[in-house]
Amino acid sequence: MTQSTFSGLRSFLQLPSALPKKKKPDIVIAGIPFDLGTSFRPGARFGPSAIRDISNMLLDGDNPVHRLDPCKEFSMVDIGDFDVVADSVERSLDLIYEQADNIKSHLVCMGGDHTITLSLLRALRKRHKKPISVVHFDAHVDTWSDSFGATYGHGTPFYYAYEGGYIDPKRSVQIGIRSPVSNEVMDYTQKDAGFHVITAEMVHRVNLDHVIAGIKRTVGDNPVYLTFDIDCIDPSQAPGTGTPEIGGLFTWQALAILNQLGTLNWVGMDLVEVCPAYDQAQITALAGATFIWTYLCLLASKNNK
Amino acid sequence: MTQSTFSGLRSFLQLPSALPKKKKPDIVIAGIPFDLGTSFRPGARFGPSAIRDISNMLLDGDNPVHRLDPCKEFSMVDIGDFDVVADSVERSLDLIYEQADNIKSHLVCMGGDHTITLSLLRALRKRHKKPISVVHFDAHVDTWSDSFGATYGHGTPFYYAYEGGYIDPKRSVQIGIRSPVSNEVMDYTQKDAGFHVITAEMVHRVNLDHVIAGIKRTVGDNPVYLTFDIDCIDPSQAPGTGTPEIGGLFTWQALAILNQLGTLNWVGMDLVEVCPAYDQAQITALAGATFIWTYLCLLASKNNK
Amino acid sequence: MTQSTFSGLRSFLQLPSALPKKKKPDIVIAGIPFDLGTSFRPGARFGPSAIRDISNMLLDGDNPVHRLDPCKEFSMVDIGDFDVVADSVERSLDLIYEQADNIKSHLVCMGGDHTITLSLLRALRKRHKKPISVVHFDAHVDTWSDSFGATYGHGTPFYYAYEGGYIDPKRSVQIGIRSPVSNEVMDYTQKDAGFHVITAEMVHRVNLDHVIAGIKRTVGDNPVYLTFDIDCIDPSQAPGTGTPEIGGLFTWQALAILNQLGTLNWVGMDLVEVCPAYDQAQITALAGATFIWTYLCLLASKNNK
Amino acid sequence: MTQSTFSGLRSFLQLPSALPKKKKPDIVIAGIPFDLGTSFRPGARFGPSAIRDISNMLLDGDNPVHRLDPCKEFSMVDIGDFDVVADSVERSLDLIYEQADNIKSHLVCMGGDHTITLSLLRALRKRHKKPISVVHFDAHVDTWSDSFGATYGHGTPFYYAYEGGYIDPKRSVQIGIRSPVSNEVMDYTQKDAGFHVITAEMVHRVNLDHVIAGIKRTVGDNPVYLTFDIDCIDPSQAPGTGTPEIGGLFTWQALAILNQLGTLNWVGMDLVEVCPAYDQAQITALAGATFIWTYLCLLASKNNK
Amino acid sequence: MTQSTFSGLRSFLQLPSALPKKKKPDIVIAGIPFDLGTSFRPGARFGPSAIRDISNMLLDGDNPVHRLDPCKEFSMVDIGDFDVVADSVERSLDLIYEQADNIKSHLVCMGGDHTITLSLLRALRKRHKKPISVVHFDAHVDTWSDSFGATYGHGTPFYYAYEGGYIDPKRSVQIGIRSPVSNEVMDYTQKDAGFHVITAEMVHRVNLDHVIAGIKRTVGDNPVYLTFDIDCIDPSQAPGTGTPEIGGLFTWQALAILNQLGTLNWVGMDLVEVCPAYDQAQITALAGATFIWTYLCLLASKNNK
Amino acid sequence: MTQSTFSGLRSFLQLPSALPKKKKPDIVIAGIPFDLGTSFRPGARFGPSAIRDISNMLLDGDNPVHRLDPCKEFSMVDIGDFDVVADSVERSLDLIYEQADNIKSHLVCMGGDHTITLSLLRALRKRHKKPISVVHFDAHVDTWSDSFGATYGHGTPFYYAYEGGYIDPKRSVQIGIRSPVSNEVMDYTQKDAGFHVITAEMVHRVNLDHVIAGIKRTVGDNPVYLTFDIDCIDPSQAPGTGTPEIGGLFTWQALAILNQLGTLNWVGMDLVEVCPAYDQAQITALAGATFIWTYLCLLASKNNK
Repeated sequence: MTQSTFSGLRSFLQLPSALPKKKKPDIVIAGIPFDLGTSFRPGARFGPSAIRDISNMLLDGDNPVHRLDPCKEFSMVDIGDFDVVADSVERSLDLIYEQADNIKSHLVCMGGDHTITLSLLRALRKRHKKPISVVHFDAHVDTWSDSFGATYGHGTPFYYAYEGGYIDPKRSVQIGIRSPVSNEVMDYTQKDAGFHVITAEMVHRVNLDHVIAGIKRTVGDNPVYLTFDIDCIDPSQAPGTGTPEIGGLFTWQALAILNQLGTLNWVGMDLVEVCPAYDQAQITALAGATFIWTYLCLLASKNNK
Repeated sequence: MTQSTFSGLRSFLQLPSALPKKKKPDIVIAGIPFDLGTSFRPGARFGPSAIRDISNMLLDGDNPVHRLDPCKEFSMVDIGDFDVVADSVERSLDLIYEQADNIKSHLVCMGGDHTITLSLLRALRKRHKKPISVVHFDAHVDTWSDSFGATYGHGTPFYYAYEGGYIDPKRSVQIGIRSPVSNEVMDYTQKDAGFHVITAEMVHRVNLDHVIAGIKRTVGDNPVYLTFDIDCIDPSQAPGTGTPEIGGLFTWQALAILNQLGTLNWVGMDLVEVCPAYDQAQITALAGATFIWTYLCLLASKNNK
Repeated sequence: MTQSTFSGLRSFLQLPSALPKKKKPDIVIAGIPFDLGTSFRPGARFGPSAIRDISNMLLDGDNPVHRLDPCKEFSMVDIGDFDVVADSVERSLDLIYEQADNIKSHLVCMGGDHTITLSLLRALRKRHKKPISVVHFDAHVDTWSDSFGATYGHGTPFYYAYEGGYIDPKRSVQIGIRSPVSNEVMDYTQKDAGFHVITAEMVHRVNLDHVIAGIKRTVGDNPVYLTFDIDCIDPSQAPGTGTPEIGGLFTWQALAILNQLGTLNWVGMDLVEVCPAYDQAQITALAGATFIWTYLCLLASKNNK
Repeated sequence: MTQSTFSGLRSFLQLPSALPKKKKPDIVIAGIPFDLGTSFRPGARFGPSAIRDISNMLLDGDNPVHRLDPCKEFSMVDIGDFDVVADSVERSLDLIYEQADNIKSHLVCMGGDHTITLSLLRALRKRHKKPISVVHFDAHVDTWSDSFGATYGHGTPFYYAYEGGYIDPKRSVQIGIRSPVSNEVMDYTQKDAGFHVITAEMVHRVNLDHVIAGIKRTVGDNPVYLTFDIDCIDPSQAPGTGTPEIGGLFTWQALAILNQLGTLNWVGMDLVEVCPAYDQAQITALAGATFIWTYLCLLASKNNK
Repeated sequence: MTQSTFSGLRSFLQLPSALPKKKKPDIVIAGIPFDLGTSFRPGARFGPSAIRDISNMLLDGDNPVHRLDPCKEFSMVDIGDFDVVADSVERSLDLIYEQADNIKSHLVCMGGDHTITLSLLRALRKRHKKPISVVHFDAHVDTWSDSFGATYGHGTPFYYAYEGGYIDPKRSVQIGIRSPVSNEVMDYTQKDAGFHVITAEMVHRVNLDHVIAGIKRTVGDNPVYLTFDIDCIDPSQAPGTGTPEIGGLFTWQALAILNQLGTLNWVGMDLVEVCPAYDQAQITALAGATFIWTYLCLLASKNNK
Repeated sequence: MTQSTFSGLRSFLQLPSALPKKKKPDIVIAGIPFDLGTSFRPGARFGPSAIRDISNMLLDGDNPVHRLDPCKEFSMVDIGDFDVVADSVERSLDLIYEQADNIKSHLVCMGGDHTITLSLLRALRKRHKKPISVVHFDAHVDTWSDSFGATYGHGTPFYYAYEGGYIDPKRSVQIGIRSPVSNEVMDYTQKDAGFHVITAEMVHRVNLDHVIAGIKRTVGDNPVYLTFDIDCIDPSQAPGTGTPEIGGLFTWQALAILNQLGTLNWVGMDLVEVCPAYDQAQITALAGATFIWTYLCLLASKNNK
């Protein structure tokens, strides 16, 4: 009797919450239901449960590009959700850092809003002992130095990650950028910090092979983190998000890019800003789940080589 | 650090899926994601996951009427979902019966459509060695002898439960009845089988204390099963269901009735026909979760006396 | 092989569009997809198709109160939709009048907005040769003398019906009234025209038997028309409408009232203001279909005596 | 040319944002788009804009109970939204207090979540120089001493308002209470603090005149504040809220109660927890707007006497 | 007086259900409201009524590519819905086969889930006396040999169609493929059966003219059936479906491909998996109706030559 | 204290409704809540309020292509909504013309349905003393000579604008065309009137630089008006509209085209057919607001040169 894809308790890909005999898993999945850093529509705190719920659809088969099932390649667990502090962005950031730091496996997180990435990068900086690269899918540069008067918010992680020495923007890429942004912040991003920015329009109008080659060239062999803000995707394909911007990437483009990046030196991932209250027919959550699944396939594909 | 109600993996009331050392729990919660018996809108297969998801809202506090938290009174588990057969109502019914029969704890099930109740009653009949009573909340009598040409469907469970000798209609009550129904089926229900039928209009127009007294008097001390079809509730308060009928019960009425039935000899419960694709803001799922929670409080309340 | 309730082309109750050999039917159902008279949210033009679609749910059984199936008692047809003029309220009113006047059967119409009732009453006035009574369910008195500068609109039908001598307000009742309304219009309605007004709060707080007796006493044996604006019902049970007002009637109350009015001298009915774009899970359309079905049962019930 | 109700820029009831020549208005309406205190679904920050948008529907007429239009009785303005701090509950509370304290007119606020009421009561305490009464409509007692680890949240305002000496619970009433709550918090509320608690079930089952008399007797002639959490209303009539509980009050009941409280010594009002992302057809926002409008009519009605 | 596109009873393109004098129509449209073969979200039983409802929008004009109106080129009828068996996939398949076999006109079916295509191909195999080609738009290969333990389901039609000798995969094409699928099933599809598979990514990245040429070359002049699973289209453009997969085809691409295939030897069509409960603003149903209309234009266009 | 983007009364971009001292603004924004010309789904009367509401998201930053903030380049006001006549298309058209004629600033209008453009072009014709060019984004040619029997409707503006001599079709462009349309109307549009028609498929399949060059060449230096019907955009990205057609333009394409047209001699703009009742997560309104904002940036960009 095979259970159908609509059946069962909902962890990510029906993963267990721990391995037998407390064995260390290869990969840990965790939710971070934090959205106090949101500037427009809150609600990404329900992102992890929405992604877990729909991930059931990915249980039945191999990835059609990589021709493998990551659940068969790795030992993986879904440990549930990180603790966060209900009334403080700063103390939540510290708490997220501590929890991430305590996980010794390869960590993949489901947000929550983008604020959380700062803490995740801080933990990786410590582990890898040098500034790491980021491949950053987003509609927004997220290098603002403040968030409508607050120090930290979902528009500030890469400002503080750069200023804190966690990341190396010159070996990092931002893809899908298209929001309103002050010229000062844009200049800071591209000139001062030195991010390689690929706008959404470029993805639409330039041959994707050039885009992919540019990413590979920029990142090189540096340890690299994938931070995927679902709002890089067009609002039609990802309506369930807090700060949508029109003219976005299509899911096929993001998949086509990611699927070619299997040779990079990946050290972790997050998928943020899925806000189910604005979703339609779970398509945003499905996109989020599929991008995480694709990342796991990238890791497995590299492993297999 | 206390986790908020929006946090965590989703089992019913965050219950574990098994007790340590395989101890037998007092109460077992299970989902039955079966909806092949549906005559109008299918989709109740997603009922269990929807009820689990919103049940988080009930974690934080005592029941305001019974002034207790059932999670502190019982050992309980949520074992996940029953297996069902994808293409056969009959074989699914057998399989559900077998799984229910194997569970030796007090069993509380989340449907799925109402067809499943037949198998659950069959298992209880075997255990209790006599026809049991049912308190049956529903817009429909569910005593049709066929389902649009099929033998079994979500309109037939009480026909076959009576014909099979699983239940004693003369000591059973149906509450909330109001759908179109042929005079033949209605006469069968009230005269041949002998159910005590309380229409929705009666609940609205008669003093609730009389309704409650009537239920108690009819059921007496017979072992009694609660089968709660969410479509007994008005479509405004339970839009997420497959065969809505206007003029339904209000949740406050169903709660007020249930809360007075703690002295009955309860032997099990199901909550069926939550169909999330038609729900709005999860209010139907919340109603379903609250009725199950209320039932657990009834049990605990009796236990405490 | 019985077709399920989700099957088949959608006419009201799957009625044919004409009888064999052009026989005159007892009852004609027609849609009037007109909403140019709407003052707030338009869209009632899709009311007829929404009501027809969900009316399938009422095919399978007898009415539980009247214990009969109106489709077995009468020859009935659903002739489809009246023609209307796309850019003119006035010419549409004339055209609706002409079409109604040409139908010699008992006519039941699905709006469309409430403007249309003026033409339907005009046709009935001509046929019955005297001012008729109306039983008018509504949140609004609809006796304004203009509609935001326009002559005719969905707030004006009973002003012009009274001024035109089509109706006799002193033998007519309005039920469910609760909207903002100028004191002048309210005085005109109750004092000048002389409608018997039963507010929504009265329905909630007074014994329903008194309400019913009051309606019967007021109408007497005058020919009487039922005009049912779905916004008399509370927005929770009828969200799909153009000018909702909180505090409305519940469907059980409207059903309980209607079900006692079988002895009146009914000469026609309309059900208006179902606006599907704002509906949830078709509950407003279902309410509309059920009220029409109930009216047909009233007629059949009287016939049977 | 009269503008229709769908037309115009959206302030509450189309009020201006200031009076000519900086005259002090009788009544000031303000939004407080704060929702960082939310424990389940955030999003009440969009409550003020949703209420303003639908308030247009109330422009055209007199209140049917009080037979007056408050816009003709008072000079009123809608000053827009209070400033709040993006990342701090505590500093937001201080800032809200300061802004409220600076407004010398009778202040009516649209939340935002219920946390804000603490600051509004603090300002009133200062002005009235003694603990004031509250008439508190809510599903929750909101007297928790912490919010999932945080000091302040939308479940804590009346704990701190009592502990801070802003309110006099013994002359205050809570109406609609029905959520899960620990016995400790419930005892604190009713016994230690001394609130007069009227549960939702009482409102459903007790004659409303007794409920109203109880409120009047409890409050007496003390200065009294109306704090209306929209979740006191049933989720079917107010789905657009963050922490719904089934079995709630109906809008007609809340209106019937409020409409009899015109003789109390009102000193201010808030309407909180409208969360548009979960609303359907704007019915929650319409309920919120109507309750505020009703409060303004109460004031006007008293004024007229 | 011209009726507007929102008016009238809803058959596909307002077609009659039979021709006068029982003349055999050129083309028969039929619904097949069957969804028991669904593996994830059921509800495609309402697909036919949803497609009929929105097809009204296509009444007013010529196809802009083919510059003709198919309703003027053919005699066509919409015969309503096929009978299906409520509780058995196998008996439904037989029944669908029999009904299809009895229709001697060119048949175009609206599903329902994809399971039905097996029976439709079986009828065509009988008529054409040899294995036919299929042009199969889909996100899934649908060549699984079982459906979560069941023999037949919506993932199995082409396995059984090939094994039964109904189709010739080597002269057939699958377009839009992108779902998780085991390597075994994929190898079976492409190598054993020999389908020409065009993945969604190929459609996005390869010049469409090459795609079109490949289809024409593969199919040649074999009798060819168009089976269009709406989930070939991206979930943003077709959210109303049961098993969505991101990265899908865009409607413009599917239209551009189809519009160039007018010279093929078409023998029938189905459009399946429209599931209205998950649709938004009827856009999925509109896509379905437009693809059927386009197919009719292809036929008419060939006819005209 | 900076207000967040979710805060404040909603005018377009938070613009004031008048300048101090009645100074003439450079640019006037106005809503025209008129939808009596709609042939399918009405509701565009709520377009202006929906666009204003979401325009808040564009407040914080420079346009990423033009690198400027139009609010800093121009004096602008949002004067609210034009008056319209509730029951007459013709008188509304006259009234709109008069109001537009009285505004001496550069006027940008938010519809409302497309009928209004006729009056706006009439006012511009008078001002510029010659037929002007239009750049017309739309799924429909809108050159029908009648609207389902009515003279004027949302499918007729360019017929009457051409026949009235307001526009010069030979120097005008239609982009995104793809709806059903009679061959007669299509021939009139392209041959008799002489519009340069760019179908949606051309935009998808031709290099955008060629499209842009074609527009510039056709328009030349004639005064040119931008009329943007949101249904030019694909229904997935603009579901909130009245007459959707599949296969539409993507927002990135429309933006890429517009962004290259800064050198044209722009004299005004409208954005029409946003119908919020069918929108999802406000993405249609956001698209509308972004296209208006982009137009303002075009003007500012030219100004700066």
